[in-house]
Amino acid sequence: MQNLLSELRSLVGETHVLSEENLSAWEQDWRKRARGKALAVVLPGNTAEVAAVVQACARHRAQHPDQHLSIVPQGGNTSLVVGATPDESGRQIVLSLQRLNQVRALDAANQTLTAEAGCVLQAVQEHALNAGYLFPLSLAAEGSCTLGGNLGSNAGGTQVLRFGNTRELCLGLEVVTAQGEVWNGLSGLRKDNTGYDLRHLFIGSEGTLGIITAATMKLYPLPAAQLTAWAVVPSMQAAVTLLGLAHRHLGAGLTGFEVMGQFALRLVDKHFKQLRVPLWLDGPFCVLLENSDHESEAHARLQFEGLLEAALTDGCVTDAVVAENLSQAKALWQVRESISLAQSQEGLNIKHDISLPISNIPAFVQSTDAALAQAIPGVRLVNFGHLGDGNLHYNVQAPEGVDAAAFLREHEPKVNSLVFDAVTYFGGSISAEHGIGSLKLHQLVHYKSPVALTMMRSIKRALDPHNLMNPGRVLSV
Amino acid sequence: MQNLLSELRSLVGETHVLSEENLSAWEQDWRKRARGKALAVVLPGNTAEVAAVVQACARHRAQHPDQHLSIVPQGGNTSLVVGATPDESGRQIVLSLQRLNQVRALDAANQTLTAEAGCVLQAVQEHALNAGYLFPLSLAAEGSCTLGGNLGSNAGGTQVLRFGNTRELCLGLEVVTAQGEVWNGLSGLRKDNTGYDLRHLFIGSEGTLGIITAATMKLYPLPAAQLTAWAVVPSMQAAVTLLGLAHRHLGAGLTGFEVMGQFALRLVDKHFKQLRVPLWLDGPFCVLLENSDHESEAHARLQFEGLLEAALTDGCVTDAVVAENLSQAKALWQVRESISLAQSQEGLNIKHDISLPISNIPAFVQSTDAALAQAIPGVRLVNFGHLGDGNLHYNVQAPEGVDAAAFLREHEPKVNSLVFDAVTYFGGSISAEHGIGSLKLHQLVHYKSPVALTMMRSIKRALDPHNLMNPGRVLSV
Repeated sequence: MQNLLSELRSLVGETHVLSEENLSAWEQDWRKRARGKALAVVLPGNTAEVAAVVQACARHRAQHPDQHLSIVPQGGNTSLVVGATPDESGRQIVLSLQRLNQVRALDAANQTLTAEAGCVLQAVQEHALNAGYLFPLSLAAEGSCTLGGNLGSNAGGTQVLRFGNTRELCLGLEVVTAQGEVWNGLSGLRKDNTGYDLRHLFIGSEGTLGIITAATMKLYPLPAAQLTAWAVVPSMQAAVTLLGLAHRHLGAGLTGFEVMGQFALRLVDKHFKQLRVPLWLDGPFCVLLENSDHESEAHARLQFEGLLEAALTDGCVTDAVVAENLSQAKALWQVRESISLAQSQEGLNIKHDISLPISNIPAFVQSTDAALAQAIPGVRLVNFGHLGDGNLHYNVQAPEGVDAAAFLREHEPKVNSLVFDAVTYFGGSISAEHGIGSLKLHQLVHYKSPVALTMMRSIKRALDPHNLMNPGRVLSV
Repeated sequence: MQNLLSELRSLVGETHVLSEENLSAWEQDWRKRARGKALAVVLPGNTAEVAAVVQACARHRAQHPDQHLSIVPQGGNTSLVVGATPDESGRQIVLSLQRLNQVRALDAANQTLTAEAGCVLQAVQEHALNAGYLFPLSLAAEGSCTLGGNLGSNAGGTQVLRFGNTRELCLGLEVVTAQGEVWNGLSGLRKDNTGYDLRHLFIGSEGTLGIITAATMKLYPLPAAQLTAWAVVPSMQAAVTLLGLAHRHLGAGLTGFEVMGQFALRLVDKHFKQLRVPLWLDGPFCVLLENSDHESEAHARLQFEGLLEAALTDGCVTDAVVAENLSQAKALWQVRESISLAQSQEGLNIKHDISLPISNIPAFVQSTDAALAQAIPGVRLVNFGHLGDGNLHYNVQAPEGVDAAAFLREHEPKVNSLVFDAVTYFGGSISAEHGIGSLKLHQLVHYKSPVALTMMRSIKRALDPHNLMNPGRVLSV
């Protein structure tokens, strides 16, 4: 292995191969679910160096198959499913894309931006904004996650309802294959029917097929105004009805539709006294709506008023407020975004990132709430999420006064089975936006169609026959 | 082979295996570029029968490899690239999806529709419309093309600017694999990060990896009003400037942006005397714009007026009209859609379905127009297309008075090379929305990245190792 490290040092420079120092920033995952041991952390400075590193590793793997060398690509190391940190073998190279952090081009007439994989998401947003455009991908980790990681995991976030997942924002990729070849698939094309769509195969493959080094992404004109409203709904079914009304009244202006259960809001109220949580005692769920208008704030407000009037008449909304200004709007979003932290303050819980056909969400929530209450009396549900995309973060918290760690030890597998069985029954997915990583590896085998798994394994073997790329993630080949 | 036909008859019924009758409706492609000879046309009645037919063919292929049996999936047989008709070997089964023509479900709350592959596109549009929803895929062949063919070829059309290609409208697939297994990947989910995206791999694979038997597609609320405008622009660069203005003024309301060169409009004026072609003598290009508004016609008109005022001030538009009513709007669209027929009336020409980064279109057109004029004095260019998507139908017509057939014989390969070399130079695609089929097979090998071709071949071998599915299309394995 020392020969390999010497070769890598000659390829990317002495200071960009770390092996003796403290590597915990690369070895420990974001949620602290697993701590691995890397053979080394390698930080190439450009695409050619990434390719050279992969070639060197592929040669080493071929010459010393018994050493089981492999590569873990890493971006901002914010995976929620232990997808980007090394295992404990000490035989994995962490290939960090951090130094590939240039925005290569912004093409205003084509409304596209080409950036390298290691660009921090927020830097990409700001680059677009400075040119007068919106890059709509937005999620909690945006200050540290990277574009490459967003693509590798097909990240979701709060704007999917209007703009789609990361996948839908991508027009082209540059990829280093498992053989260390560079595929230049960067393209600002909105139409290109020349063979199989390799781009969509790499997006969401979590670094198991190759390494995304750069991408061309869509931009949008900045909206003239964004307004936020907060509504109380008498039931989850009413929230679904409100969503339908919002689509009709706001059209593509509807850029956010978040649902929050009363217990989730109670936790924010309890742990963040400085935040004002509006109307949370008045119903079982509240909804946060965002209207992005290309015309004017006055027009956006008129649209919102029309929608809320119709909703109050219908009865699917019992009370509502519209933010009067930007700081009120930010305060409403802050309540929504504080739910994750508030539940941590309350103690560890069992998290689920699930999606369902929107029409099935009311029945899913009703029957799963009841089944959990019966299985674990007093259990508390932190239910919130992107209802407009059918995506719920349906988290299960210990009963009041019960030790959270003990609750997880005793109940986690049982709760996961109960929730995922229900998700499957209602036609949903066990991972909506976080991916599989190693955390959901065994659940994927259980819940995914065997026909689909067979095809996935064939593709993995076809593109990475020596299992060099991020083994043990997504598929246990 | 007779044993196989007997087995297929027992699987799908005597009357649904055609071999003795006149099969020209299945053997002759839409553009009459190639006529093949099928061993038989098989019309299964449901997904299970499709799977049984594929299994029988796979067994036969394994037992008699020397007979080179294979399957050509076919929908409405409107491929423009000879992608869905048999070759001349007499060893191909045409597997028609025509009898799988049921809309299985329409889920209003989820805004999705699940339909079988053999549904005619127009029937799907009407089913959605009857429930109060828009299914936005729209193209010239919609009266006879099928949803399965649209998915297999990732069809484009006139609404891509706002709603994307067929790919972007699809949430889930049901597929019969090359092994004859059924993958039920139907899903109404907008987020599902559970492994490689098989859906996007099958979409656009032109029947070479498996057979799409059903799909779940997105629906949208019907707009309250649709307005159409027609503008004269002084140059292609001005058309690109107008597109940017239209994005800013109309936001997601901009659902159509078509450019038409003066010679294309001259042909419509010449061959369809009953149509009134507005303003075509006043500039080198005209643009047709469509604004879909979720509010009202009055609002749509106000938006258009704001845009056109800004465009006239800027100088990127020199004159414009807005349709006063629906019949005027239809008449404008009819002019646009008559270009294809008008050029046929004028005589055969050399067609190209290309795409480019929008920012490169003015330079591409200027330099390629000049290069063609130099290579073939008097050559005439029928240049029109979906500028909003960067997609041009850049067709090359014989000089006035020159015999079209002789022109094609003499110039087609040279013209294709000149155009495709220029497309490649400007970062474009040689097939924007029509696919590869067998017509562009050899051009793909020439113009596509070798790294991409290697990956495509690996995927083909992984999913269809015996080359049973539509061989000789997309890839010459």
